[in-house]
Amino acid sequence: MSRIITFLGKADTRHTTVAIATAKWFAQYSQRVLLVTHNPNPSAELLLETSLKATPQEIAPNLSVVQLQATVLLEQVWEEVKKWLALYLPPSVKMEIYSGEVIILPGFDSLLSFNALRKYYQSEDYDVIIYDGRGDLESLRMLGIPNIADWYFRRFREALESLDLSKIADSIGGPLASALLSANMDTRKVQDAIVQIQDWIAKSVAVVGDAKRLSAYLVTTDEPAAIAEARWLWGSAQQVDLRVSGVLAYQSYEAANKTELEQAFAPLKVNLIPALQKHNWEPLLEALPDFKTIPHVPQPLTVDLVQRQVQVFLPGFSKSQVKLTQLGTELTVEAGDQRRNIVLPDELRNQPVTGGKFEEPYLVISF
Amino acid sequence: MSRIITFLGKADTRHTTVAIATAKWFAQYSQRVLLVTHNPNPSAELLLETSLKATPQEIAPNLSVVQLQATVLLEQVWEEVKKWLALYLPPSVKMEIYSGEVIILPGFDSLLSFNALRKYYQSEDYDVIIYDGRGDLESLRMLGIPNIADWYFRRFREALESLDLSKIADSIGGPLASALLSANMDTRKVQDAIVQIQDWIAKSVAVVGDAKRLSAYLVTTDEPAAIAEARWLWGSAQQVDLRVSGVLAYQSYEAANKTELEQAFAPLKVNLIPALQKHNWEPLLEALPDFKTIPHVPQPLTVDLVQRQVQVFLPGFSKSQVKLTQLGTELTVEAGDQRRNIVLPDELRNQPVTGGKFEEPYLVISF
Repeated sequence: MSRIITFLGKADTRHTTVAIATAKWFAQYSQRVLLVTHNPNPSAELLLETSLKATPQEIAPNLSVVQLQATVLLEQVWEEVKKWLALYLPPSVKMEIYSGEVIILPGFDSLLSFNALRKYYQSEDYDVIIYDGRGDLESLRMLGIPNIADWYFRRFREALESLDLSKIADSIGGPLASALLSANMDTRKVQDAIVQIQDWIAKSVAVVGDAKRLSAYLVTTDEPAAIAEARWLWGSAQQVDLRVSGVLAYQSYEAANKTELEQAFAPLKVNLIPALQKHNWEPLLEALPDFKTIPHVPQPLTVDLVQRQVQVFLPGFSKSQVKLTQLGTELTVEAGDQRRNIVLPDELRNQPVTGGKFEEPYLVISF
Repeated sequence: MSRIITFLGKADTRHTTVAIATAKWFAQYSQRVLLVTHNPNPSAELLLETSLKATPQEIAPNLSVVQLQATVLLEQVWEEVKKWLALYLPPSVKMEIYSGEVIILPGFDSLLSFNALRKYYQSEDYDVIIYDGRGDLESLRMLGIPNIADWYFRRFREALESLDLSKIADSIGGPLASALLSANMDTRKVQDAIVQIQDWIAKSVAVVGDAKRLSAYLVTTDEPAAIAEARWLWGSAQQVDLRVSGVLAYQSYEAANKTELEQAFAPLKVNLIPALQKHNWEPLLEALPDFKTIPHVPQPLTVDLVQRQVQVFLPGFSKSQVKLTQLGTELTVEAGDQRRNIVLPDELRNQPVTGGKFEEPYLVISF
């Protein structure tokens, strides 16, 4: 089983330095490591003393590195999309759009990176994948894709099913209406696709929610702004069901105040990482935590059926930054500029919320 | 007429410091300034000594600040989307999806931020909008939206028009087919929408391509990795038709080597910006360029009809990083992990390319 480790915090040189150190840490234990970076990343090229490519290349024993490039990834995905479309479109229909001319839209980078990570993970070619992404809110949105897909799929399917087709047909009227009602669709193909998508979503949701398979470390310094941002990202990570396993505090010029950091990030363990000097990675590798031991951290969501309560772990936020809403059948937690629609167990589904109380770091919802 | 200024380079504290200094610079000349930042941005809050809100608030004479929050923006946009859908869907059809439960997908942040910037720009409430975005490739993708929309609209319309409807109808068969062919669509409404969209795209493309209305400054230090990244972004900016007007080199600890910087970014002007000390902004304001003078910089694209040549300005790239392809009717330049489909004048359209040569910093395409 592969394992993915990523980092949250300001995505500057420190971030990349810590990612490389972590990759080297695993490689020294004979684990097959793939370090995944983005385009552009001159810091990584300078630190690794090599130029990065869009396909994995081994740069040291057990250590491979790849730089994700949206244009290259799009080319690969486009071929798959075309095959998939061919399954559903009649053979006479051809969209003459070449992959080479498709322009990359905002969000494509995240979707393509997610897809690339998923493939490397499933390939089983690597024991550990170190993902040196942007480490910001957009990274969380990317890692949130499985849970987002889960919700969209469930919710829009409900919405579509609740549409009264005969009403639509009436208001459109004419031959299109009667056609809609009698259309001879290939329902087996559509059903197969739905089952496949559901299976994919369920598997991905399981990976994201399992710290043994995916976990994040916060990267910070002892500067107040860096700490504040790392704390914000820590809370935000809970919203996509991502486990944060520890804090790596990079020392830039002075020794960081460890006690202060430990208070800011309790109950997480804080490791102080010395600055890299003259390409000597040894001190950094020694300062890293033992990644083989996966620390126990609070669950993002705990359901207590006896007390009829749901506890949402939201560290790093204050009361004013957390919002709870119940609209229709959905219970939504808004925090960290993200929304999480909570899937309740049958016993609590569609029950009115009797109370929502935020006491750092928990939001307690009572039914 | 409003003006937007943004920054490209590593989006850390320096970036925000330079953005705030620029906002203060304009405010001192009695220009109405809006500083637009993102969520989260504890650095901005510490530097401005205030907490940021999702609606503009005046924090000093002529100086307002707003922090874009995707969840809030989505709420506003959702109302508009619903109104728009109501125009096209029959009144009996209701999708019971509340804005409050819609989860934010990758790319939404960019789309929502773009829309917010567009509104502030059109409101004419501000003379200058200082946009402290991420300053990376994703920012460029965001600013590239008008040109992307232009291409998608043009290209997919062509593709759709080239579809042979009767062929599709034949292969689907039955009543749906005859309905498709005889459907009584409200073509006037659809035509109106198309004209509106085209108008919007044309206006936005004009704003992006005009340095008097939108320009970017590179933010760097004298570290090799920072310079390399800023150069890469400089070239990438050309791909979305964005003008880069100058370089702001932030001095962290030692005096930066100005000559080296000027060589790396010629013909751009380089201004050295001192580090902020004890909230004293004066030295920074004095070090900034005169933003009122808009420097002449090379055009991203120059067409020479006599020589039958197109010159593409692509600074910061080497030969191996630039790719030219001609597929179907499209001429595509790939560089900086972006694609630019070049719209040629009638004289050169559909003509075979006889040569493509990259001599830093120009790609010269001959017909």
